[in-house]
Amino acid sequence: MTIASKQYEALTEEKAIALAQSLYPFPEGAELVCREIGDGNLNYVFQIKDPKSGKGLIIKQALPYAKVVGESWPLTLKRATIEANALQKHSEFAPGLVPAVYAMDEELAITVMEDLSHLTIAREGLIQGAAYPKLSEDIGEYLGRTLFHTSDFALHPFEKKRLAVEYSNPELCKITEDLIFTDPFFNNDTNDYEPELQATVEAIWNNGPLKLEAAKLKFSFLTEAEALLHGDLHTGSIFASESETKVIDPEFAFYGPIGFDVGLFLANLIVQSITRSGEERQVIVNHIERTWEVFSTRFSELWDREGIEAYKDTADYKEFILEKIFRDTLGFAGCELIRRTIGLAHVKDLDSIEDKNLRIRLKKKALQTGQTLILKRSELTTISAVSGLLEELKQ
Amino acid sequence: MTIASKQYEALTEEKAIALAQSLYPFPEGAELVCREIGDGNLNYVFQIKDPKSGKGLIIKQALPYAKVVGESWPLTLKRATIEANALQKHSEFAPGLVPAVYAMDEELAITVMEDLSHLTIAREGLIQGAAYPKLSEDIGEYLGRTLFHTSDFALHPFEKKRLAVEYSNPELCKITEDLIFTDPFFNNDTNDYEPELQATVEAIWNNGPLKLEAAKLKFSFLTEAEALLHGDLHTGSIFASESETKVIDPEFAFYGPIGFDVGLFLANLIVQSITRSGEERQVIVNHIERTWEVFSTRFSELWDREGIEAYKDTADYKEFILEKIFRDTLGFAGCELIRRTIGLAHVKDLDSIEDKNLRIRLKKKALQTGQTLILKRSELTTISAVSGLLEELKQ
Repeated sequence: MTIASKQYEALTEEKAIALAQSLYPFPEGAELVCREIGDGNLNYVFQIKDPKSGKGLIIKQALPYAKVVGESWPLTLKRATIEANALQKHSEFAPGLVPAVYAMDEELAITVMEDLSHLTIAREGLIQGAAYPKLSEDIGEYLGRTLFHTSDFALHPFEKKRLAVEYSNPELCKITEDLIFTDPFFNNDTNDYEPELQATVEAIWNNGPLKLEAAKLKFSFLTEAEALLHGDLHTGSIFASESETKVIDPEFAFYGPIGFDVGLFLANLIVQSITRSGEERQVIVNHIERTWEVFSTRFSELWDREGIEAYKDTADYKEFILEKIFRDTLGFAGCELIRRTIGLAHVKDLDSIEDKNLRIRLKKKALQTGQTLILKRSELTTISAVSGLLEELKQ
Repeated sequence: MTIASKQYEALTEEKAIALAQSLYPFPEGAELVCREIGDGNLNYVFQIKDPKSGKGLIIKQALPYAKVVGESWPLTLKRATIEANALQKHSEFAPGLVPAVYAMDEELAITVMEDLSHLTIAREGLIQGAAYPKLSEDIGEYLGRTLFHTSDFALHPFEKKRLAVEYSNPELCKITEDLIFTDPFFNNDTNDYEPELQATVEAIWNNGPLKLEAAKLKFSFLTEAEALLHGDLHTGSIFASESETKVIDPEFAFYGPIGFDVGLFLANLIVQSITRSGEERQVIVNHIERTWEVFSTRFSELWDREGIEAYKDTADYKEFILEKIFRDTLGFAGCELIRRTIGLAHVKDLDSIEDKNLRIRLKKKALQTGQTLILKRSELTTISAVSGLLEELKQ
């Protein structure tokens, strides 16, 4: 459903309530309450609720700029359309694992969608020590289904290329190209790290073989249009509870290398594994293994059952593709680990550690893990080899 | 320049003359002569000339269907726009190596361009034994310049992605996906070969490792948006003389793997080398070597001088990219050799050989060369290793 278009203007709480009433069958006489719950850097997020019935919805509006650490730069509103469309496209293949979209409006750059406030952002919950027993199962499913079904292995080439054009997303991709693949590997102003990491960071900037591999991974990201990615699948883009998982915020969606989505998610789990110990750590390592197992099993089953590629039964072809995805996954995970530690956008998992010595030690571990994943991604051929590496680096 | 649009209708010779007069400053009183010189399968090609002054031009009009061996299927007229735009885009970077475009019209699906009838289609000339001393130098330049300048190594990512959308070309790509990468490797109705090749062809269909490599090359073609390719750079898409070379017909242009353009051209030279012997053969082998040398030298110089990639000076990165292009080049060349021998669209170089035994022997050689290039593309790391292979297979 598309609502009547107007010229872009930032919503107020009053306007958001009026819009919500026109779009959703709230009970008669409902007295709606509206809260702006976004972080205000990229989007407004209005939660509109009828406290009596408990019914509610979310109106998310893209802002025409991005604010990060005080700086502000213009950013396309088209991302709201991409996000709404990607949510709907992905829900075709992974129903129940993304929020329902009720309406969208290109001009206003808004998406009206399911209120998920009964869930917690996975990153927040994980930092509090949550186990989220369904997390890896659900994300593995989400990845396997959305990435297989939007690839050349499942789609007629006309439809795949139509989608690749629809989801062309240069401005958001450039953020990734710069902040994940470039800036952290060079002495760039956008980097941000404690003075105690200076020597470690300089060693990265001066590590020729590492930079060569980062360059190759960036080239993959720039050129390989394999599937419709979420594009920013960290644990802050996931709502979770003990029994539910929902993937949100695909405004970075575009046609890119499959391993990028898998790698980003795994990297954010790896950060958690680095901050935990004992039984709690093992929960996360199990999630890491299970994510890959579920993803690769689902991808493989869909390939067998629904694949349309003429070569799908050619001996070793499916294995070749899965090996490529795995290698890419580790490389992209490595880049994410590094940028989340020394780049512009950090993760709370590490930054919120108050004990400075511990924080620096764990950040060094994250950097070391990232570098090893990038450099050894062709040797680490199984997910248990990755757990083995994490175990080794634990010491 | 864009001429006034009308609804699509096929041009007649009279209408073509009227159009030419409205577009080009022919001398006063010129009595224009028009000939339709296309092969009638995909396009009309009207040559309009003033015999007195010798001045003339070409009006090429796309037909809304393709005819191949009696069959006819609808085919997008958008290809005329893609062709006209690609000619102009490529001429920005390789001036003098493509025909000048005087005008285009999207509705009529026509391109008005320089008359090159003083030149010969390179394939025809080569079959007659021409040496075309400038051919490899010019095509190497064309490839190096057009492919570098439209890649992520030269363009701002916004511009590269804008061009990738503009040149999205699903219908024409599908012809390549089917006829080059799929059908020849399976028992498909579109294949076409002499009964004497039956056993050789079946060996291809049953060669698992070969099909695995063909599948990988098809995947590259489907997913790797590296540069704005010509997309169909065989020797029939090149006009040549002793002193001039012009690349025509880029209606298959799209963002794809760089090695595809290089590989198609080399494959068509390799076919020539297979049909020749002695000194005449050496001329072609020299062209093969020279094409790669000029391409890689130009690409490398442009990288150093004009590259914008942050990693451009990272040790071994340029070499990695050139090695990838070379490996892809050989693989794509191998696919082209096979499909030009047993697929739907043959080459006159082989089909016109009247001595049947010789023709079958040379076709088997082409198939063997194609398979070896595909299977050994990671081992053949230099162009002289390729010449060595051709020398070996000569026997």
